[in-house]
Amino acid sequence: MNKKSQPLADELKPYLAPFRYDGTGEFHLKSHKTDAKGGLDKEKATRIIEANRKRLAEFQEKLYAQDRWSLLLIFQGMDAAGKDSAIKSVFEGVNPQGCEVTAFKVPSTKELDHDFLWRSMIALPERGRIGIFNRSYYEECLVVRVHSEILARQKIPQKLVTKDIWKERFEDISAVERYLSRNGTVILKFFLNVSKKEQRERFLERLEDPAKNWKFSLADIGERALWAKYQAAYQDMIHYTASRAAPWIVVPADHKWFARVVIGSTIVAALEQLDLHFPKVDKADRSEFKQVREALLAEEDGAKKKDG
Amino acid sequence: MNKKSQPLADELKPYLAPFRYDGTGEFHLKSHKTDAKGGLDKEKATRIIEANRKRLAEFQEKLYAQDRWSLLLIFQGMDAAGKDSAIKSVFEGVNPQGCEVTAFKVPSTKELDHDFLWRSMIALPERGRIGIFNRSYYEECLVVRVHSEILARQKIPQKLVTKDIWKERFEDISAVERYLSRNGTVILKFFLNVSKKEQRERFLERLEDPAKNWKFSLADIGERALWAKYQAAYQDMIHYTASRAAPWIVVPADHKWFARVVIGSTIVAALEQLDLHFPKVDKADRSEFKQVREALLAEEDGAKKKDG
Repeated sequence: MNKKSQPLADELKPYLAPFRYDGTGEFHLKSHKTDAKGGLDKEKATRIIEANRKRLAEFQEKLYAQDRWSLLLIFQGMDAAGKDSAIKSVFEGVNPQGCEVTAFKVPSTKELDHDFLWRSMIALPERGRIGIFNRSYYEECLVVRVHSEILARQKIPQKLVTKDIWKERFEDISAVERYLSRNGTVILKFFLNVSKKEQRERFLERLEDPAKNWKFSLADIGERALWAKYQAAYQDMIHYTASRAAPWIVVPADHKWFARVVIGSTIVAALEQLDLHFPKVDKADRSEFKQVREALLAEEDGAKKKDG
Repeated sequence: MNKKSQPLADELKPYLAPFRYDGTGEFHLKSHKTDAKGGLDKEKATRIIEANRKRLAEFQEKLYAQDRWSLLLIFQGMDAAGKDSAIKSVFEGVNPQGCEVTAFKVPSTKELDHDFLWRSMIALPERGRIGIFNRSYYEECLVVRVHSEILARQKIPQKLVTKDIWKERFEDISAVERYLSRNGTVILKFFLNVSKKEQRERFLERLEDPAKNWKFSLADIGERALWAKYQAAYQDMIHYTASRAAPWIVVPADHKWFARVVIGSTIVAALEQLDLHFPKVDKADRSEFKQVREALLAEEDGAKKKDG
């Protein structure tokens, strides 16, 4: 289908490499710009976003037909970083039969009765499917870390809650991601990196526009006040859990259109690498298909004769 | 409740230490005797089995009330090693509300559409509960390893199935078990070590006793023919996945009564270590309880007066 000679990974390179961290070398969240545009303007970006949508729809069809790989996409970021709208925009053209979004909210009593990965494990995408986590088990090293009272409510036996708990969670999450990738789940993790200033603008918009009022919650202002603590938690999370099997993409998110370019490009470039193809029909099947086809055609002729 | 000065771990020591492997030092399955009796006869064993049942029921009530720890017990072994009957005997006195047995059979299509741990993760015991796995994800390194055609059916992307797959599975399973133990799941893994000769006796019994016929399947004979391959797979499994967080207990299983002594003793000794207790009621609650009690008593008196 795709006869272009240039691989997508080359064509889209300016929107991939600068934002990807796979655990190689150092990582400093502070040196990542929130307002990068990759040399694009909104118009050019829109063309890339649309091209990526078509590519994604094409790849997804093969992913589904081949039924071997699955794709897990994790979205994290502060309130109003643009997680919901990015998911809506990037996956617009995708067949919902092969794609499921799970939004993780405050854990239920039943969920708290299990280990913290349990509710995410249940929601993992089946082979051939795309699973999108809008927030994820990473909240266990973010909101739970920033608010120690949440950890206290988690019913973990007290002697197991030590100062090593975050290091242990990073280690455990990384091990589980490695396991999943070994079994055919391709994992991409997007951190939507928005500035505090841009969040202010978006909050004001939510307060002023009646159609956006519902997206605002007073609790968001409380979280905003903890901005520095969250940034420190994101820095640690990305630093300790990025790996080749499950890289973090630090997405500049002040310009929503550029965030969508980066997210879409990252996904299609990863899918291209899988060398997806429709399952091949073997010789025996093909000869059988021929016979069945002829029988169906004959049936049609017969019906025509009868009806006529 | 338990006012004995001697800890269970000391009292039951002869039925614990010799059979436990936590990854420290070497491991050779061949040097483990299948017909050990720990110096007991059937009569003495029965007394220990019964005492352990009472202890287990007592501990379980506290485990449930405390609602912090959970207990995961894994049973593996050849056909007719005595897994079902051991589970039945050891957990006879346990409140089924706090205890669930999951028997893992051939995976379903839906299960194969996920990573191999998925169906087990779903079935993990909640806090305060005992989860018993009759066979488990370890079959992924046993029957799947002995029968390569099963692995071929697992729909894992071909490029991920390399010669390292068993090493990777041991590593992944160990990491997940470490994660679970860090979050409050106590894991004990029992390998019911039966001799080929004893299996022959039990198979003959199943063929001859009409009440046991249903337990026999012709496929079992096929597996028996692969005895040496299975022993090699068990050796590797125990060697590579035993850890302090999730030890293997190599249970001598030729004498069913001794197997039950070892299994029951291991479980009660592990529960004793958790220092389980009923949740304490604080002063404020206690004074409230007093008031409520008085109100209830007054109600009773009132009803009596009215009825009389």
